[in-house]
Amino acid sequence: MRLRVDLLPHGQYSDVVIVVDVLRATTTAVTYLERGADALLLTATPEAAFVLRGEGVVLGGERGGLPIPGFDFGNSPVEAAAQNFTGKTVVMNTTNGTGAAHTGAATGKHVLLAALTNAHAAARRARAMATEEIAIVCAGTDGRAGLEDVYAAGVLAEYLLAMGTFTIDDGTRMALTVRRSADSPLETLSSATHGQTLLNLGLGDDVRYAAQISTSTVVPVLLEGEGQSSADALRFM
Amino acid sequence: MRLRVDLLPHGQYSDVVIVVDVLRATTTAVTYLERGADALLLTATPEAAFVLRGEGVVLGGERGGLPIPGFDFGNSPVEAAAQNFTGKTVVMNTTNGTGAAHTGAATGKHVLLAALTNAHAAARRARAMATEEIAIVCAGTDGRAGLEDVYAAGVLAEYLLAMGTFTIDDGTRMALTVRRSADSPLETLSSATHGQTLLNLGLGDDVRYAAQISTSTVVPVLLEGEGQSSADALRFM
Repeated sequence: MRLRVDLLPHGQYSDVVIVVDVLRATTTAVTYLERGADALLLTATPEAAFVLRGEGVVLGGERGGLPIPGFDFGNSPVEAAAQNFTGKTVVMNTTNGTGAAHTGAATGKHVLLAALTNAHAAARRARAMATEEIAIVCAGTDGRAGLEDVYAAGVLAEYLLAMGTFTIDDGTRMALTVRRSADSPLETLSSATHGQTLLNLGLGDDVRYAAQISTSTVVPVLLEGEGQSSADALRFM
Repeated sequence: MRLRVDLLPHGQYSDVVIVVDVLRATTTAVTYLERGADALLLTATPEAAFVLRGEGVVLGGERGGLPIPGFDFGNSPVEAAAQNFTGKTVVMNTTNGTGAAHTGAATGKHVLLAALTNAHAAARRARAMATEEIAIVCAGTDGRAGLEDVYAAGVLAEYLLAMGTFTIDDGTRMALTVRRSADSPLETLSSATHGQTLLNLGLGDDVRYAAQISTSTVVPVLLEGEGQSSADALRFM
């Protein structure tokens, strides 16, 4: 079995893809499902999200860290954790995370969303699904690798390596090094460029929330059956 | 002054760009100039290299680690070190390194080529040229980050941080972590995916050559005057 970490989305996948966008898309996605949402629809564009609006559907997302005008929610796990989404479908669009999910889904066989909060559960699920390769795909920020995602990839890789034998690539080696050399999760996230941006926007509670490790067992998994997902929207449950 | 490390070429640069492709393009480029070459022309494609053929011009490059049919030389620093290129122009085309140089040159103000062999000299030159930002751009391999380039970026970053004060980004933090956690340069290059590929091709001498740190003071610098460089070929001296 191969274990691979892409420090940025690369585009060619063959088996299991774990998409990581710790600050904040995948952390928020996990929280929506924890708080009862029936499904998550990840769209490629904000426009595609508006099209999906309807009864029982709410929209969440951000641009530049701030809520998208006309959306019901931002991209805040703390905000999501304070709500009850039972019976709702949440449509998400964010700057980096939803795009990374679309890149992974274009060629991957199975796509999962992982954050620090669900890292152990995501690693277990990936291990159970994989037949040849697990690719951990870091969303990054605006095309550049993010410390928080590479750190989380290292956490996932450590869990996976404890579960079995893998051949690993350079990305995995670097993610493990980053994870093993890091301070606490909160210090790591707070020192990352995107963590700094969120702190400056007054969103420190979200950074603290995202720095919790394996507090959740929810793993959003891409549904691939007829009519479940399309190029416009990926359906996760 | 900002210091930035792109674990893969990103595309938007504003000041000094240091292109790193340790295995082997930038290591070989340094060696060509050390061995007397008048200039290096880095082309975007092998076809563009053939067009430049002429009196006093030799072609060097690789695909899949092996020499390009019709080229005079491969992409081997050991092969280059054994020749005398006095009075010659060397036209280079390689799988990743020459493309990274073109990406850097598209928006960067000054472009340098760096390897481990010229790391200290390259850092000094970059520091002298920069007015706002030094971006170290790792070429990677086929769109994926390479351990050897990120390690070299960490070596360059350490030299630069010893020369002045910089604000650093996540890429720099990760490169410094990789560099500081690494074994010897040779062990690092040999364990990298691309190092393994070269060892399997019987090119271990090139890996050993590329693992030497700051043995050269030659820094290839992009010439930007009228007629010096074009979209087809970048001229370094």
